[in-house]
Amino acid sequence: MKKAVVIGGGVGSFVLLTGLKEYPLDLTAIVPVTDDGGSTGRLRDEFGFLPVGDMRQCLAALAPENGMLRQLLLYRFEKGKGLKGHNLGNLILTAIEDVVGSEPEAVAKTAKIFRLKGKILPISKKLVKLAAKYSSGITIISEHKIEVYKLKKGEKIIRLYTIPRARINSDAVQAIKEAKAIILGPGDLYNSTIANLIIGGAKKAVGESSAKLIYVVNLMTLNSQTHDYTARDHLKEIEKHAGRKMDYIIINSQLLPQRILRAYRKLEEYPVIDDLGEDKRVIRRPLLVKSAYQKPKSDVLKRSLLRHDSKKLAKTIIGII
Amino acid sequence: MKKAVVIGGGVGSFVLLTGLKEYPLDLTAIVPVTDDGGSTGRLRDEFGFLPVGDMRQCLAALAPENGMLRQLLLYRFEKGKGLKGHNLGNLILTAIEDVVGSEPEAVAKTAKIFRLKGKILPISKKLVKLAAKYSSGITIISEHKIEVYKLKKGEKIIRLYTIPRARINSDAVQAIKEAKAIILGPGDLYNSTIANLIIGGAKKAVGESSAKLIYVVNLMTLNSQTHDYTARDHLKEIEKHAGRKMDYIIINSQLLPQRILRAYRKLEEYPVIDDLGEDKRVIRRPLLVKSAYQKPKSDVLKRSLLRHDSKKLAKTIIGII
Repeated sequence: MKKAVVIGGGVGSFVLLTGLKEYPLDLTAIVPVTDDGGSTGRLRDEFGFLPVGDMRQCLAALAPENGMLRQLLLYRFEKGKGLKGHNLGNLILTAIEDVVGSEPEAVAKTAKIFRLKGKILPISKKLVKLAAKYSSGITIISEHKIEVYKLKKGEKIIRLYTIPRARINSDAVQAIKEAKAIILGPGDLYNSTIANLIIGGAKKAVGESSAKLIYVVNLMTLNSQTHDYTARDHLKEIEKHAGRKMDYIIINSQLLPQRILRAYRKLEEYPVIDDLGEDKRVIRRPLLVKSAYQKPKSDVLKRSLLRHDSKKLAKTIIGII
Repeated sequence: MKKAVVIGGGVGSFVLLTGLKEYPLDLTAIVPVTDDGGSTGRLRDEFGFLPVGDMRQCLAALAPENGMLRQLLLYRFEKGKGLKGHNLGNLILTAIEDVVGSEPEAVAKTAKIFRLKGKILPISKKLVKLAAKYSSGITIISEHKIEVYKLKKGEKIIRLYTIPRARINSDAVQAIKEAKAIILGPGDLYNSTIANLIIGGAKKAVGESSAKLIYVVNLMTLNSQTHDYTARDHLKEIEKHAGRKMDYIIINSQLLPQRILRAYRKLEEYPVIDDLGEDKRVIRRPLLVKSAYQKPKSDVLKRSLLRHDSKKLAKTIIGII
């Protein structure tokens, strides 16, 4: 089976993996270790383990069917003192980290218990904080704070790093080395995708890889991270941090529904403009999901309403690799 | 495959099922709906679902192997605001009850997800409180309060019932009807075993069943429920509530280790005296587990130190049925 690596986190990786797992691929999801918001943040603070939120998304995506087990892994408690807002998948992963101790082993055990159609690897074994330096001169430390920060006019993230520095997990290096394809994005450009690439040794591993590099451009800008970014701006940042040119750039060609755009406009978030021009690497396809995502009541974090359709996205990727 | 039903709860059912699942039996565990202490009690109060503690024990026992999955299902959080003392298996079952809504369906889904070697059925679909009337004239309402009550000299439970009354789950009736063997005990005589039999229709179902009825006598008396009870006293209570004579009575013949007895003596709990005499139904075997049970630090409930060995117990039962 062809080996493919998905580098990212959050809903973006969830969508990608949900689609890709239906194909005969040997899948590995690589996720950041910098998430510190919501249920994950509480668990991270209280237990001191690697953050579980991104792993949970991948776990649910790679579950053997899309039914009950996935529903359970994504289940959020709506009541219960101290439980409210916690996610069952997060609690399961926390228990696993506690019982097994070493995280990559935890992931392997989890994959076995849940008969996952792929592996999940944290980009590093070190628990670190994400830090962003902005063009305005300020620095914000904490992934969650970066996520909720609202960029000032013209302000940009000019440097992303971790405190302290961390080295890439050797299993992740191995997976990247053996991959025939590496897929980056969609998802939070800095907090999910680049948060992996800034880990020591990650840029080198991806840069030296002989895999086809595929970038999936986001549908919408993010007020906290990519305000005013065009597709080319996204790509530039990705290529800078990946240490290599992308081989393929996948971008949605379908019109976004006005009704949903209005909701985004209130948040000052807009469709990512396709300014990629005649670049031969660009693959334009209608990639929108039909139904908008329902935000769970107790989910304290903002989740995207507009999403890529996992089947359409996977089909496009499979057409390349 | 021969159908066998285990009626009980807690560690007793855990031990029984752990042993029996290694044999080609079609197993059903029937558990009470009256547990209201510890993690289960908190969840019951906060979510209003059927109590999950006894189900969790059975779930862990029936998990396909005795390794990681079982460890996870029994995992207790030792820290975390609001999480501490909660049991992962309880949280999983609570999420399932919330997602699926109807409890027997929840159990079926759970069995499928975890590839369980048997079914788990709550004795009733109604959430009720356990009530005990004592020979002293007092009445205590709440399973947990009954569990921590210390019997006065000569005081006994003279009536056990639920508030409000509840009817037996029709799936449980069906399982009892089809069973070739029904095993009662070991475990808390009133809180685990008889707590099932007092549910409306349960006594009738067991009484009319053509199954072999097997009773496993407890190793130790319980200060809260069976102080001074001999084996014959236990049996009398079981037969009164089961509406039928037992066909077999299994009792340990092995000497209990002095070191552990000393610990029990501090709690005023003593070995159950075998006064069953020459009764042909009695099967005496060495049934002790080698290693004493370690009490988890955050487990607020008392758990038994001395236990039956699941393999020896299962082998004895298989010899009969």
